[in-house]
Amino acid sequence: MKTAVLAAIGDELLSGARLERNAHFMAGKFHAKGWEVRRIEIVSDTESEIIALLLRWVGKTDLLILSGGLGPTHDDMTRHAIARYLGCGLVADDAAYDRVLDRVKDDPKRYAYTESVRDPQAMIPELAETVFNPAGFALGMKFTREGTRVIALPGVPFEYEAMVRQELPEIFAADEKRVASVIILDTPEMHIAAKIPEVISHPFLHVSILPALPQVELIIRGEPDTVAWGEGLTRSRFAGLVLPEGSMSVADAVLIEARTKGVHVSCAESCTGGLVGAALTDIAGSSDVFNGSAVTYSNDAKRNILGVSEATLRDFGAVSAECACEMAEGSRRVYGTDYAVSTTGIAGPDGGTDTKPVGTVWFGVAGPDGVRAVMRLLPGNRGEVRTRAVRFALAELWKSIHNQ
Amino acid sequence: MKTAVLAAIGDELLSGARLERNAHFMAGKFHAKGWEVRRIEIVSDTESEIIALLLRWVGKTDLLILSGGLGPTHDDMTRHAIARYLGCGLVADDAAYDRVLDRVKDDPKRYAYTESVRDPQAMIPELAETVFNPAGFALGMKFTREGTRVIALPGVPFEYEAMVRQELPEIFAADEKRVASVIILDTPEMHIAAKIPEVISHPFLHVSILPALPQVELIIRGEPDTVAWGEGLTRSRFAGLVLPEGSMSVADAVLIEARTKGVHVSCAESCTGGLVGAALTDIAGSSDVFNGSAVTYSNDAKRNILGVSEATLRDFGAVSAECACEMAEGSRRVYGTDYAVSTTGIAGPDGGTDTKPVGTVWFGVAGPDGVRAVMRLLPGNRGEVRTRAVRFALAELWKSIHNQ
Repeated sequence: MKTAVLAAIGDELLSGARLERNAHFMAGKFHAKGWEVRRIEIVSDTESEIIALLLRWVGKTDLLILSGGLGPTHDDMTRHAIARYLGCGLVADDAAYDRVLDRVKDDPKRYAYTESVRDPQAMIPELAETVFNPAGFALGMKFTREGTRVIALPGVPFEYEAMVRQELPEIFAADEKRVASVIILDTPEMHIAAKIPEVISHPFLHVSILPALPQVELIIRGEPDTVAWGEGLTRSRFAGLVLPEGSMSVADAVLIEARTKGVHVSCAESCTGGLVGAALTDIAGSSDVFNGSAVTYSNDAKRNILGVSEATLRDFGAVSAECACEMAEGSRRVYGTDYAVSTTGIAGPDGGTDTKPVGTVWFGVAGPDGVRAVMRLLPGNRGEVRTRAVRFALAELWKSIHNQ
Repeated sequence: MKTAVLAAIGDELLSGARLERNAHFMAGKFHAKGWEVRRIEIVSDTESEIIALLLRWVGKTDLLILSGGLGPTHDDMTRHAIARYLGCGLVADDAAYDRVLDRVKDDPKRYAYTESVRDPQAMIPELAETVFNPAGFALGMKFTREGTRVIALPGVPFEYEAMVRQELPEIFAADEKRVASVIILDTPEMHIAAKIPEVISHPFLHVSILPALPQVELIIRGEPDTVAWGEGLTRSRFAGLVLPEGSMSVADAVLIEARTKGVHVSCAESCTGGLVGAALTDIAGSSDVFNGSAVTYSNDAKRNILGVSEATLRDFGAVSAECACEMAEGSRRVYGTDYAVSTTGIAGPDGGTDTKPVGTVWFGVAGPDGVRAVMRLLPGNRGEVRTRAVRFALAELWKSIHNQ
């Protein structure tokens, strides 16, 4: 099994000012290709820390990818550290940088600025090779030592992604499935293993059971044939409760199902504040079946936009089955859709009561056959309650369309 | 300076199935207290990797926090690894676990399950102390060796957070400011340093300039007095272009400004699909000034819900100044608000044209004094274009309210 180590460089990552995402992105890609990611490390942007990182891993892994520290500012130390490690100087790769510059030739201001930071952005250690940047301006660099291939790339996510795609085409090639994900609805985590003991205990499969509250995600890894067997068995044991193959998420499942059935969907959101719509539109091409979402945070908006009745709000409150149903029906009506899902609840930290504690969320699903409401008491802080409410809402919407 | 190392344990993190957030959360907290986070590491959930982690850091840092691997399933190896490292056995802390059980005494099913996983969830290495779990069921553990305090906690974010708050009250106490963040609008990253050279080059300040496109975030760290001086000088040099003190984000700034001015706000979203509403409602208490957001993905929804005219959609298209203005005005009208911001653009990867390439986003801001539109060509992939459009929309909304 080939191994990779993913390192991110930057004090902004160690200080919590930025969340590291490049290593996470690549980890999934390597994993799907059967590579082992041995470690993810976030290190400080000092020369000594970067050199220590190289000393730690060169000779011990097939691939080491560094991200960050290649920009033009005073805290960008990666290229200096690599040159020091290799015991060489830095030299400008003017040919590569001219290609980068060419991209802004019609914008005199940006051209002048990009030219002014040729040193350091074009500087490459003499004993390393240039990695061209097809999406940004700082050049990357690579070298091989003691059997370890080292690639250093800028930390800006879309530059990083463009450059790993360019340098590691084998990781991004379509291929047999060495990892399968099965998303299981309405089944507590604790009841999963007992239904598929032969998958869980299979000697050549590695199975992770991950709570993705309120769903559970089962990840099955191994050789393609064995993974296919394990995935098939799992899907049959949980028939009716698993999202279809190829659905990467509940949002994805909703869009696929809506396309298959030829229906349009919309939302009405209170406590999720737009996150259900955001989850659906995060997926390119969603516009062919998703019409929109009415985020109605105030009671006035629920009344005026969705037609929730004064009596409902007065007698049952906004967090109620009645309100959830009227919101879903209202969304279906104003967006002219076939199915609509609504959320209304108490995300916290304030607003909870004895009868409706923080985490109480009502969901409504309206469709051609009528409307239904379901309540869940979701655990966690404000962000977690909201995230879980999004997944639950989409799962309920998916079930309604699926069972049509 | 006290040092901490933050480690997360779990193959689901190394395989890209889950994004690590606990270390990121704590990194920000330590940083604000003047601690140095020396490293963030993500390691595999095998006994040998966890023991190697302990050997690597015990004696070399003041504090080491482990997260994950304490649940009841077969891949939860942390407690075994710690016992092996300490050279002792595991013993159940029944008293602590009984307190945990007490929480589900009214739910027979959950009670039975939680009791059935007493072993391993109550098991603590004999040479370690129990860390009570006030939010979940798996107990944590802690010990001190060679001057390093080691704390092992479950990986579930809200349990982790509850337990670090309980174990490290000094990190969560209110305190003098050792880190200041200044968010600067409408100023390219490259022009920042030249306007505040004495802050950038101050020997006792550490300054990071972070693109938070389309804004720039300046993070100033050091002793409280020096940080206050640096922040003050920066704020005066960029007067009118900085978000007010205490605003943690543009969404926060909008809510604070709206409260100060006594106005209500709403949105109309196309390409951001609900993310602007989600950003505002991510902040607790937003309901006092935020009424809602009309996510109108289809042209029909733009017409029917926001009253965008047929002629506008036909003559200029949905991605146009005219449509952005009508969307903002429509949102202000249907939500009965004082200010509304709209987004309509091409997030990609498809849908771009020569005149409206991917990344083209029009923003409209409507207020008591009329409506205006502004266009930006935002770089990045679909997710980045959307995220940047959210920040830009909120900044434009903030400016309109601020300059009222």
